Amino acid sequence: MYQKVTTEVIEKLQHIVGPSYVKMNKDELISYSSDESMAPELWTMPEVVVAPANAEEIGAIIKLANVYHIPVTPRSAGTSVSGGAIPVCGGIVVLLERLNRILELNEEGLFMVVEAGVRTVDIQQAAREKGLLYAGDPCSADSCLIGGNLATNAGGNKAVRYGTTRHQVYAIEVVLPTGEIVELGGNLKKCSTGFCLEQLIIGSEGTLGVITKATLKLIPTPLYHFDALAVFTDLSKAINFVPNLIKEKLNPTSVEFMDNRFVKRANEYCRLQLPHWQDGYYVIVSLDTYREEELQDNIERLSNICEAAGATDILEADERIWRVRRSCLESTRELSKEATSEDLVVPVLRIAECIETVVQMAAAYDFQVFCLAHAGDGNLHFQILRGNLEKTEWERQLADFRKQAYPFVYSLGGKLSGEHGIGVKRVDYMETYTNPVELMMMKKIKQALDPNSILNPRKVLNVE
Amino acid sequence: MYQKVTTEVIEKLQHIVGPSYVKMNKDELISYSSDESMAPELWTMPEVVVAPANAEEIGAIIKLANVYHIPVTPRSAGTSVSGGAIPVCGGIVVLLERLNRILELNEEGLFMVVEAGVRTVDIQQAAREKGLLYAGDPCSADSCLIGGNLATNAGGNKAVRYGTTRHQVYAIEVVLPTGEIVELGGNLKKCSTGFCLEQLIIGSEGTLGVITKATLKLIPTPLYHFDALAVFTDLSKAINFVPNLIKEKLNPTSVEFMDNRFVKRANEYCRLQLPHWQDGYYVIVSLDTYREEELQDNIERLSNICEAAGATDILEADERIWRVRRSCLESTRELSKEATSEDLVVPVLRIAECIETVVQMAAAYDFQVFCLAHAGDGNLHFQILRGNLEKTEWERQLADFRKQAYPFVYSLGGKLSGEHGIGVKRVDYMETYTNPVELMMMKKIKQALDPNSILNPRKVLNVE
Repeated sequence: MYQKVTTEVIEKLQHIVGPSYVKMNKDELISYSSDESMAPELWTMPEVVVAPANAEEIGAIIKLANVYHIPVTPRSAGTSVSGGAIPVCGGIVVLLERLNRILELNEEGLFMVVEAGVRTVDIQQAAREKGLLYAGDPCSADSCLIGGNLATNAGGNKAVRYGTTRHQVYAIEVVLPTGEIVELGGNLKKCSTGFCLEQLIIGSEGTLGVITKATLKLIPTPLYHFDALAVFTDLSKAINFVPNLIKEKLNPTSVEFMDNRFVKRANEYCRLQLPHWQDGYYVIVSLDTYREEELQDNIERLSNICEAAGATDILEADERIWRVRRSCLESTRELSKEATSEDLVVPVLRIAECIETVVQMAAAYDFQVFCLAHAGDGNLHFQILRGNLEKTEWERQLADFRKQAYPFVYSLGGKLSGEHGIGVKRVDYMETYTNPVELMMMKKIKQALDPNSILNPRKVLNVE
Repeated sequence: MYQKVTTEVIEKLQHIVGPSYVKMNKDELISYSSDESMAPELWTMPEVVVAPANAEEIGAIIKLANVYHIPVTPRSAGTSVSGGAIPVCGGIVVLLERLNRILELNEEGLFMVVEAGVRTVDIQQAAREKGLLYAGDPCSADSCLIGGNLATNAGGNKAVRYGTTRHQVYAIEVVLPTGEIVELGGNLKKCSTGFCLEQLIIGSEGTLGVITKATLKLIPTPLYHFDALAVFTDLSKAINFVPNLIKEKLNPTSVEFMDNRFVKRANEYCRLQLPHWQDGYYVIVSLDTYREEELQDNIERLSNICEAAGATDILEADERIWRVRRSCLESTRELSKEATSEDLVVPVLRIAECIETVVQMAAAYDFQVFCLAHAGDGNLHFQILRGNLEKTEWERQLADFRKQAYPFVYSLGGKLSGEHGIGVKRVDYMETYTNPVELMMMKKIKQALDPNSILNPRKVLNVE
């Protein structure tokens, strides 16, 4: 059992970060009790929220928490949909928002050094101004912070071509669960000097350390760009198009699938009426090249593939299509006060099979399901709305659905989460569906690095 | 202290793998007492060598070793130059050579599933036959096994463009230090489902597990290729050319530097007289593109960069240049019965500064130094020959040189090993130069996963 935050602890926290950066007022605390997972049963009030200025202060807070045995929950922008930033055991919430500087942008060396509290969109923008690309691009880029991206190994729209957040990183600075500060990795193209600890920390959702700084890779921006919207009026054709596209090795930057429920709803929400908004399934394909004639060739090949796949319409898409795509989750918010999003991931060639089967499974339940997919990387999002379902019935049906869907996904070689993380929301499923040997390894590592279970407890794993 | 291999243990080993796969004869054992590190003081006889057929047998051997507290050293092809495969504590050597099957080559899904004992060149060849590229390409590809590449995160000639071995991997099967078998990672483009354990195991040099199988990434082979040889008669011009080349963002596949000692010696060894073999510094640049006009453009740009850098000669290079390059290490073997190779790595923009300074440092000593570099990824190899130096003098001078060079390399943001690994050869330096917090993390993880210190002891770290 954890200890409570006492007056003594508060005073020590005030001493570490300065009194104005310690929040205790209930009205202030409440906004740190939740994140963007629409699951009220997870919401938990922190006992205190602190906004340290740097890694040293975070280290001092964590050391203090170890002495008093108080849980610490790191929080970036709180845009998690898995409850990763919710202080489910109470205790101290540590904000990253004051670590908000871009420290270096090295054009020749193609890297950028940033603190964890910089907004992802600002990193993208700073790179763009120099003709460079930071390829991490979660859908929440406008609001999320890079620290959260690193903690969850965020994916997003460009992962088909460029990989996820972990693939954009040379080095990180981390505050360990015991309070020490360490730089892991290096600004190196090669390394065989001990264990690859930076990749262990990235994606560990703040359970193995608080990432405070990162050296990110940049690449020259492709000069030529084309967004295509392939519209299908048949689900099966739409999803079978994706593996065929992948097999053609066009190296697209994005391949995004939206089912007609999302197409309709997001068009309404954006007050748009893009083609076939009432009956179409959308597949957005982005092409980027460094050479103009290559783009022209690729557009032609893409157009042929679309045609062969039975697309109803193939259009050049403008920014409106991305507005529609990005508004998907938001567009369903007002339809239901409670909702949950699935984040299943499967081998990319199994995506059609996965969508088809899981959509069929879902149809047997009373909740409403909206489906979209980062289809080009096998990552499937289901937005499931409680709507008017009675609470216990909602929970029962959801549990039943998952009991059907998850084993199927694992049978395809898939996993629970492609990019949202396990957080607290999926921790029981993590324990159920992860290979027991793999789970044991994770727990041993967690216990070795966080012997008092101070850092982001009950996330990813149950270790007490 | 470890226990000795007794008759009882031998019988149990014979029971696990079959009597014909247990080697005890001294004449047989001797070839497993060394690797390609030319450092006789490291050579140690194993007590027994076993050649298991699969992961299950390896698991049983390791469980047995835990019961009897006997060290286990996994061995792929034994091409390590860091003593990684030498059984420095005696005990059991486990050969991977019978796990030699390519299990699947999936052209559409762009992946290959291989056992750990497949030769790297056979993987490259199998991919090539399907128009695909396996991008891992250590210089020893002809003789090394993929298991060793994975264990050391092998680099090689193409890492500039494609990254090192760890970047080519979707998933691995591993036998843990406690004998359990587990599949880590997945054939997934994205994953945020717990800790990234596969990357922790890759590059851990067989201290955290024995990799028995891997799912490797393949990419479409670029169709157009050009090898250029830029010859310089001035060291400074040759090495300063490299960062300039990198800044130009030509995305070369290889950028290899050879100093004139290596150029001369390797030409002699190969009975070739390539241009300026007597006075030239070579920089080999490989260009690969998917489009012909892009290659032409890149060649032109390369040629301009070479000219601006003051190259004496710029030539199209054929396979002979790669023969010379690949023969470098071998070509010095007959010059000295003892030698050591450094494998320093620095941020790529610091490579010129690093070579220049370390070459200058080395000049003050009596040993002979040959220098080459995977310059495009900041990885510098020094081949240092004992020659006729008296043994204790050799050791003293080598230690002095390292005491000068290593802190300098770390001051540039570099590390001890780019691709050869720490093995047993660099373990003391690893302890000296690694950040103590990072080192502590590595040791805690090692102890958590290998509580009896059974697996490849005294490699990478000292943990007893």
